[in-house]
Amino acid sequence: MALPGNRAEQKGDRSDRLVQLCNPNIAAMKEDILYHFNLSTSTHDFPAMFGDVKFVCVGGSPSRMKAFIKYVATELGLDLPGGDCPNICVGTDRYAMFKAGPVLSVSHGMGVPSMAIMLHELLKLLYHARCSGVSIIRIGTSGGIGLEPGTVVLTQQAVDATFQPQFEQMILGKRVVRGTDLDAQLVRELMQCSADLDEFPTVVGNTMCTLDFYEGQSRLDGAICCFTEQDKQEYLQAAHAAGVRNIEMESSVLAAMCSACSLPAAVVCVTYLDRLQGDQIRSPHEVLAEYEQRPQRLVCHFIKKSLRGPEAPATRR
Amino acid sequence: MALPGNRAEQKGDRSDRLVQLCNPNIAAMKEDILYHFNLSTSTHDFPAMFGDVKFVCVGGSPSRMKAFIKYVATELGLDLPGGDCPNICVGTDRYAMFKAGPVLSVSHGMGVPSMAIMLHELLKLLYHARCSGVSIIRIGTSGGIGLEPGTVVLTQQAVDATFQPQFEQMILGKRVVRGTDLDAQLVRELMQCSADLDEFPTVVGNTMCTLDFYEGQSRLDGAICCFTEQDKQEYLQAAHAAGVRNIEMESSVLAAMCSACSLPAAVVCVTYLDRLQGDQIRSPHEVLAEYEQRPQRLVCHFIKKSLRGPEAPATRR
Repeated sequence: MALPGNRAEQKGDRSDRLVQLCNPNIAAMKEDILYHFNLSTSTHDFPAMFGDVKFVCVGGSPSRMKAFIKYVATELGLDLPGGDCPNICVGTDRYAMFKAGPVLSVSHGMGVPSMAIMLHELLKLLYHARCSGVSIIRIGTSGGIGLEPGTVVLTQQAVDATFQPQFEQMILGKRVVRGTDLDAQLVRELMQCSADLDEFPTVVGNTMCTLDFYEGQSRLDGAICCFTEQDKQEYLQAAHAAGVRNIEMESSVLAAMCSACSLPAAVVCVTYLDRLQGDQIRSPHEVLAEYEQRPQRLVCHFIKKSLRGPEAPATRR
Repeated sequence: MALPGNRAEQKGDRSDRLVQLCNPNIAAMKEDILYHFNLSTSTHDFPAMFGDVKFVCVGGSPSRMKAFIKYVATELGLDLPGGDCPNICVGTDRYAMFKAGPVLSVSHGMGVPSMAIMLHELLKLLYHARCSGVSIIRIGTSGGIGLEPGTVVLTQQAVDATFQPQFEQMILGKRVVRGTDLDAQLVRELMQCSADLDEFPTVVGNTMCTLDFYEGQSRLDGAICCFTEQDKQEYLQAAHAAGVRNIEMESSVLAAMCSACSLPAAVVCVTYLDRLQGDQIRSPHEVLAEYEQRPQRLVCHFIKKSLRGPEAPATRR
């Protein structure tokens, strides 16, 4: 499929930038097995399969990422063979991956480690495929702080449990701290897209990334809880004062790894509840299902607009 | 299904012990929604559905946990309706859960956070169902250190990246360190089961639990790598000297949470490769598939033996 070249003009030199790794060992490997994708450079032609990818959208749930690619394909007017979209990662249930034109949709499971494994292999996939001008966007769900449920949060900074914009990991038994910069231009463009759509409230704010959903997010309803409602309220209020507007479990490692490899990344999460009001997710299924579609609608609009280019009239496809 | 009472005699007071939580809030809740299981105490009868559970087996992959429950049902001579085993967590793809008689089989995804969410909800499920005498066993895969690939490791201690038997988490923005005790009696019984079977090498050793598969496990083949082969070898040799025999990504939080709730837990992982020899998992699919079955065969034998009781002749079913 031939793609419009307008994104290049819109973004200057960005669209020419090849995906780079921070590991000189990879170029010297005869074969690279991406074990958790069940793909290998010796059995799959990465440039042919993925060379045209410009937008990588990632999210926790395999079924949501399949629903997203079908929605994108329809919106972009792309034909899917047989009306369906096959999972590229056949033979493993660790992750699911789908492709429609320039859009790759990949599930990452829940939590930083699951996201990290996926990102290591995804970045290598994009490198082996010699992709250029790629952006990565996480479309996810989260708990809000002081926001109406259903609000979409565009992450300005991914912060840790002490509200610092950093990601700590253990390498060779030593603590290594990396920055969690996200792409400011992507945030601006996504905010404009939300204004274009005018369908749901969207805010820019900091996103706290935790390693646990219960104790780690100051929930009182886990199997283990050693603090009080007052402790929880004080912590969440302190987070709010530090600019945190939502809490989820993958943003910081996405920001750290993409930043290390100079790949523009964004995090777009809808809030399912206001954590100042409670811990359990009690909204009816159909309400949550509609909330879940909001980041998808926003990011799909962004993709369409990017492919069209800034000068095109709004009705052009 | 009526269960033999022999396990009570074998284990003394253990079999009477109700599953307890470390959170007084739960008993006071009118409804408890286990969001990631898509189960709720107001819509599901937990005592009727799960009250007879004695063995909970957990593993990363949904399809592996489904294969395991079918294997267990066959080995225990249990009828599965229609020959299939429905996923109890319908309506969500976060986790999958299957049941056959006293055995519950649950997937946990990859990494500590994904395991933690599952365990919070699993422990609450067992508590609401008023289960007693429950053991939890993780059947997983891992990287070995100085072991022939295919060796099964029974975890003595789950250790962190500095080889200490502890699990660190952030609660209300502060570091909290918990112990990672596992059940010594379960290890002894599982080791005896491996001797009974005499089908594959099994060792008892420490298991290092990491938050990443690539940099966090000193792999040289991730998208990011800032150390040398020599650094890696020195680190893995230091781990080996500290008693570490394999590396995986969930054992420490399983040990910490089950220990906090006084639930006996064990970790049984097969090694896919010897990390002193390399990083990539290069064995053919059918070899890995056979390795993957080893923890399943061992734990299924343990369950059969436990249900039979110690005095029964070996041929009794």
